[in-house]
Amino acid sequence: MKTIDLNCDMGESFGAYTLGMDEEVMQHISSANIACGFHAGDPIVMNKTVRMALENNVKIGAHPGYPDLLGFGRRSMALTPEEIRQYLVYQMGALKAFCKIHGANLQHIKPHGALYLDAVENETISRAVAEGIMNFDPDLYFVALAGKKGETMRRMGQSLGLKVVYEAFPDRAYTPEGTLVPRKEPGAVISDPDFVAKRALDMANGFVKAVDGTIIELEVQTLCVHGDNLAAIDLVKNIKIILETNDIKVTPMGRPAA
Amino acid sequence: MKTIDLNCDMGESFGAYTLGMDEEVMQHISSANIACGFHAGDPIVMNKTVRMALENNVKIGAHPGYPDLLGFGRRSMALTPEEIRQYLVYQMGALKAFCKIHGANLQHIKPHGALYLDAVENETISRAVAEGIMNFDPDLYFVALAGKKGETMRRMGQSLGLKVVYEAFPDRAYTPEGTLVPRKEPGAVISDPDFVAKRALDMANGFVKAVDGTIIELEVQTLCVHGDNLAAIDLVKNIKIILETNDIKVTPMGRPAA
Amino acid sequence: MKTIDLNCDMGESFGAYTLGMDEEVMQHISSANIACGFHAGDPIVMNKTVRMALENNVKIGAHPGYPDLLGFGRRSMALTPEEIRQYLVYQMGALKAFCKIHGANLQHIKPHGALYLDAVENETISRAVAEGIMNFDPDLYFVALAGKKGETMRRMGQSLGLKVVYEAFPDRAYTPEGTLVPRKEPGAVISDPDFVAKRALDMANGFVKAVDGTIIELEVQTLCVHGDNLAAIDLVKNIKIILETNDIKVTPMGRPAA
Amino acid sequence: MKTIDLNCDMGESFGAYTLGMDEEVMQHISSANIACGFHAGDPIVMNKTVRMALENNVKIGAHPGYPDLLGFGRRSMALTPEEIRQYLVYQMGALKAFCKIHGANLQHIKPHGALYLDAVENETISRAVAEGIMNFDPDLYFVALAGKKGETMRRMGQSLGLKVVYEAFPDRAYTPEGTLVPRKEPGAVISDPDFVAKRALDMANGFVKAVDGTIIELEVQTLCVHGDNLAAIDLVKNIKIILETNDIKVTPMGRPAA
Repeated sequence: MKTIDLNCDMGESFGAYTLGMDEEVMQHISSANIACGFHAGDPIVMNKTVRMALENNVKIGAHPGYPDLLGFGRRSMALTPEEIRQYLVYQMGALKAFCKIHGANLQHIKPHGALYLDAVENETISRAVAEGIMNFDPDLYFVALAGKKGETMRRMGQSLGLKVVYEAFPDRAYTPEGTLVPRKEPGAVISDPDFVAKRALDMANGFVKAVDGTIIELEVQTLCVHGDNLAAIDLVKNIKIILETNDIKVTPMGRPAA
Repeated sequence: MKTIDLNCDMGESFGAYTLGMDEEVMQHISSANIACGFHAGDPIVMNKTVRMALENNVKIGAHPGYPDLLGFGRRSMALTPEEIRQYLVYQMGALKAFCKIHGANLQHIKPHGALYLDAVENETISRAVAEGIMNFDPDLYFVALAGKKGETMRRMGQSLGLKVVYEAFPDRAYTPEGTLVPRKEPGAVISDPDFVAKRALDMANGFVKAVDGTIIELEVQTLCVHGDNLAAIDLVKNIKIILETNDIKVTPMGRPAA
Repeated sequence: MKTIDLNCDMGESFGAYTLGMDEEVMQHISSANIACGFHAGDPIVMNKTVRMALENNVKIGAHPGYPDLLGFGRRSMALTPEEIRQYLVYQMGALKAFCKIHGANLQHIKPHGALYLDAVENETISRAVAEGIMNFDPDLYFVALAGKKGETMRRMGQSLGLKVVYEAFPDRAYTPEGTLVPRKEPGAVISDPDFVAKRALDMANGFVKAVDGTIIELEVQTLCVHGDNLAAIDLVKNIKIILETNDIKVTPMGRPAA
Repeated sequence: MKTIDLNCDMGESFGAYTLGMDEEVMQHISSANIACGFHAGDPIVMNKTVRMALENNVKIGAHPGYPDLLGFGRRSMALTPEEIRQYLVYQMGALKAFCKIHGANLQHIKPHGALYLDAVENETISRAVAEGIMNFDPDLYFVALAGKKGETMRRMGQSLGLKVVYEAFPDRAYTPEGTLVPRKEPGAVISDPDFVAKRALDMANGFVKAVDGTIIELEVQTLCVHGDNLAAIDLVKNIKIILETNDIKVTPMGRPAA
């Protein structure tokens, strides 16, 4: 039986500020990327989110980002590789502490926002990210972009010996070359929920239809979903149903299907 | 042979800002309290300080503080017990991550600044601090104030089963009741280095002379020293020499003398 | 014709985080207390909120708070009077800059959260707040708690020559002594919107019914309302209607009725 | 009589962290660029630095930077033009408030660190910086890089109607094309104090010797000097002496010589 992981960014609230519908989406995903306090999240939120993941049998990952709460980690910052490595170690350690007090394991690392995008574009950055993870714990899964565009990022992880998990985005348009259509271009983000759910199934089956209709092969082990609002949560539910209806089991990273 | 630990706050630099003479003082102490990024310190500094401690055979402790970089953690903040617990877990986890990448162990926890003083004064706060440590790792030493004034803080740690290490301050005046003379009072801080070194020896021998000349018993396992400037470092050297000349071995917390 | 001001905390969003329904509530109030970036708010939000206030003919006030974004300024911090003064000057200046670029005036200052409550309780703190305002601009209105409880805060402002505006809270219960029932006590916050609106009218008329039924005199020039959600906005609308139906004009601080 | 301004970054301390020797260098310069709390500085430091400038008859400028205290504003951040504009307004307003309480005027704006360098390289960024200043106060001097490299930055300021002040760096090597040798290249920073002082005089006279010996014309109205340590302060003194010995008066921006 085929399997696929559904991952979602979680724990992005901060102090008095609430973001995302974590309780609802947690019921439908298999892996949670939990913010670590640099771009979002705080110790109270991290503790609560780790506990919530455990209660829902969802695997826990760290979602480290740039130290930019004001920009929510969505703005590139010109960090040195050493800064990237140690900022990651700090954030992974902080999240692991909350795993430890709840008796949970840390499953994976997925860089957040601009750090993820910069790692996709830039070999020095993706190497620094991979080194940070490797230094901290070589057994962690490293979530990296699937498809042609993600080659550098994945290679940097694999060359260090990390277990790289290939990620695709059902709600993003792909070029015929297998790269994501940049967000600023029209049609980059797909809003029709039925179409997104259909694409999730395609991706789980190893392909995606590009903007020009070409069918592209795409090796994918995890799908990124969203929990921002009720519509997003309905979509996650739908994706899960359509996957399971088609004999694809939603299961955490690297866990073989029963 | 008697033993005593010498602890010093370390890793208090931040970004472009340098504070303390860590390299120099690290050669003369047995335990380093390393700031964890809330009131001081950053990932680059933490990494460097952990490595430096290892190289100097100094044991590593976390020095968590209030989330107040602007106030250097020296201003009381009205946190809830839950906030205290989780802020500690976060900071301890972050520092432990740097220990992990260097193959070092975390030896102890010493709250910083206003958090330490508030824990001394307030049972709810000292309990929250002790619970945070206990939740994270019951094997960590908990550094708490020696003498009458520190009873609450130590009791909170001991009642939870933590290994409490009694701390005294050679450069601080003590009242006949065995409590610290408050900083704002004249004579609270002793500046004569020879007198401070002499007091360090007294404390290692289990007593201290109060401001009125009374000799008070004081159970002490660690002495807090400073590394702010060259004079402070000379003082630490002197303390170490006077201790060892008097057959008291400077050795980390809980380690039996050879 | 009698007049009363309706003030509401505004501009409390931060980066990717949205808080409050500023656009909706702005249509129904006469004075906006705009966060200045220490406990909430950021330059983009401040600029937008000032513009929105202008467009709605709402007067602008600064809402300075403790430097504690993580705690939303709701946690007391042990600041020195000098720190309070200069933190206020900084925040007032930052907000005034946004007034300047829009050709608006700064009308008033209302301390936020724990800073307000600490000023109510503590003469040293209320004096420091009043001094900070006075140093910056003696023509600013200083919003201080009405009733017996607010005497110290108001006196500190008045003794410096500030124009003090007396504030009451229609949704808070009052003791027979004319002080607010502390939030942690049952019944401290009144949730029945009709009752709150009725109390707003009473307050505009110079009295309030205490928890034991006693009628207390209360000199009030501004009422604090909330814009957190749709129900809160309905309540503000209701308050305004009931006031105007009873010939009380909602108008900014210190502006004489037509 | 010729005149030249000497500007220096000031007020870069933060909380418990001290940076720079502001008291010493303040005696020898004519314009102070004061940090505004985003990359360095805090309200206490800003207040103290403004007062110190006034006491030394030094003109005051705002030195706004990226919101990156951890990186000291030395790391590029991918901000939108709107973010740059409003971050500047916020910082300029905060500093102006301290000028106001001391009865001082704000003379100029000089972007800090990576914001300055990004403005030099990028027209969109220099336009956003200039717009932010223009919106806040069209009478402020805008400090921009002299020489060929600074053309874009200066043009953006001048096209908006700002009074642009041309800045040169006596301790930096210039290419024959009149651009700064990048910091990472050998010889980019000149350490011989006598040579630096000699170059300051050349610059005040309208030229500079490039790395290949070519003499390049350079229109300069302000020279950037440093106050990091005693040697730097000696250098500033020397520069001032050599200038005045050669009949060039050190005087603030735009002030005609007596």
